[in-house]
Amino acid sequence: MSAHRSARDARSHDGPLLKIGVAGLGLIGGSLALALRSKHQVLGFDVSRDTRDAARSAGLTVSDSLEGLLPADAVIVATPLDAVLPTLLALEPLAKDAVLLDVGSVRARVDAHASDRHASPRIVGMHPMAGRSTHGFGAADPAILAGRPFLVVPTQRTDARAMAVAGEIARDAGGVVTVCSASEHDRRVAVLSALPLAIAAALSIGADGAGDLAAIAGPGFRDTTRLALTSVDLGTGMLAANSANVLQALSAFREILDELERAVASGDDRAVAAFLERARSARERLEGGKARVD
Amino acid sequence: MSAHRSARDARSHDGPLLKIGVAGLGLIGGSLALALRSKHQVLGFDVSRDTRDAARSAGLTVSDSLEGLLPADAVIVATPLDAVLPTLLALEPLAKDAVLLDVGSVRARVDAHASDRHASPRIVGMHPMAGRSTHGFGAADPAILAGRPFLVVPTQRTDARAMAVAGEIARDAGGVVTVCSASEHDRRVAVLSALPLAIAAALSIGADGAGDLAAIAGPGFRDTTRLALTSVDLGTGMLAANSANVLQALSAFREILDELERAVASGDDRAVAAFLERARSARERLEGGKARVD
Repeated sequence: MSAHRSARDARSHDGPLLKIGVAGLGLIGGSLALALRSKHQVLGFDVSRDTRDAARSAGLTVSDSLEGLLPADAVIVATPLDAVLPTLLALEPLAKDAVLLDVGSVRARVDAHASDRHASPRIVGMHPMAGRSTHGFGAADPAILAGRPFLVVPTQRTDARAMAVAGEIARDAGGVVTVCSASEHDRRVAVLSALPLAIAAALSIGADGAGDLAAIAGPGFRDTTRLALTSVDLGTGMLAANSANVLQALSAFREILDELERAVASGDDRAVAAFLERARSARERLEGGKARVD
Repeated sequence: MSAHRSARDARSHDGPLLKIGVAGLGLIGGSLALALRSKHQVLGFDVSRDTRDAARSAGLTVSDSLEGLLPADAVIVATPLDAVLPTLLALEPLAKDAVLLDVGSVRARVDAHASDRHASPRIVGMHPMAGRSTHGFGAADPAILAGRPFLVVPTQRTDARAMAVAGEIARDAGGVVTVCSASEHDRRVAVLSALPLAIAAALSIGADGAGDLAAIAGPGFRDTTRLALTSVDLGTGMLAANSANVLQALSAFREILDELERAVASGDDRAVAAFLERARSARERLEGGKARVD
């Protein structure tokens, strides 16, 4: 890090300036690069020449090769989910002391890889709980990261320095750090990301098949189905790469829906109201952003 | 209507000025009253004195009794769903030529009542597909009606003048008129309103039971569950008063979700991707606001 301290005085930043590579300049990688460049020395790369050109036009410094991101203090891998592990494998031989972070929204594969005794560099997950239904560098915007939870997920290849670097990068990108294990991460995102996607998708297909409904859909229906606009590649990864947790979340969801369905079928208005009251209270706790204590 | 024409020249309005009563000044009734007062002579009423005071403070003319809304060209009943029919019954003896409109989000009961040979006044449904998760007069805002579909639902007690009045009021409130039968209306709102509510409620309860998830929920989860904030009375009415259509919508939804679940369970990534692609296309058609033609 000390090699880059010379630039520090020219910037308003409390911590040491880091040299950070960002591999993959889509919605998340692009947003991270744009968010971090005022505080660190950021170098980006994307496999798409058009994306590299767009990133350069936006004022980012861009490498024409993945390997050009190294040496660095950290490289953030922000590729599509199925390219995360291949990208990590390509970086590892050159990584030396660099911390390899990846924003993958399912942790199991990287976690298993990092448990391999042959894996040597520092590896840690840093998954921003952020997104929007558009994607690509053109949609990148530091604002989508501001105040969002960043799930920092240590592996067997994570040491104290890797955790410190991940935490600093997450905070400097505008995020709020939450540390959890890979298994806890994957269980949580199944409930918070994959399940709502599955539901929004099924609801969209159902309404589409139910005749001329689009013209009269209200804001509630639009909100409930918005996640169906998720990019198909990302969505497939979230569901398919985390299938055991997703199936468990779907099963739990069905059981709860069964309860409401029984109340509706039995004509028990008070049971319907009690269910909706529980749901409203649960959702209000979420709205307050407060974790439930019970 | 002619009795009110004298006021017409003082206002910029193309059609005849109507004397319109609004019974119930919550989110929808309050928004309608505020939207219509620049073009018509609007008189409001609410059973709550506090609400009447708030409406007066907002510049609305308010009656201290339901009966005081008559005589009128039209009375809009915008009470909670379970009070719609009692309010219509209370208005009918005094209604004379007034058109009785109600914004009830389930049509079956009013439709059955209007089919009764003893029912005499003009009755027509006018349901704005609009809302927000807050309620009461304090949340009322004409903006929530602007450009929204208003489902105008004729009954056996609807004549040409009633349809014309309903259409004029809907348009002057900022809405876009869509005419449909009561049975079609109730089938549509089961899919577009009740089903998303049921799903958002079940999802909220599920996440609440899954541990400390609230702190890391992203915007996608919040959007998908926002309808769980619907007022419990409104939600209970939407589910319980339309149970046959709701159960059918739930059953259709489950079948579609089954399809995705089978794809995830079988590890067939291409089937998962194909499902998400269909959903995305369906949701994109909705986003365009275009009714599907097939």
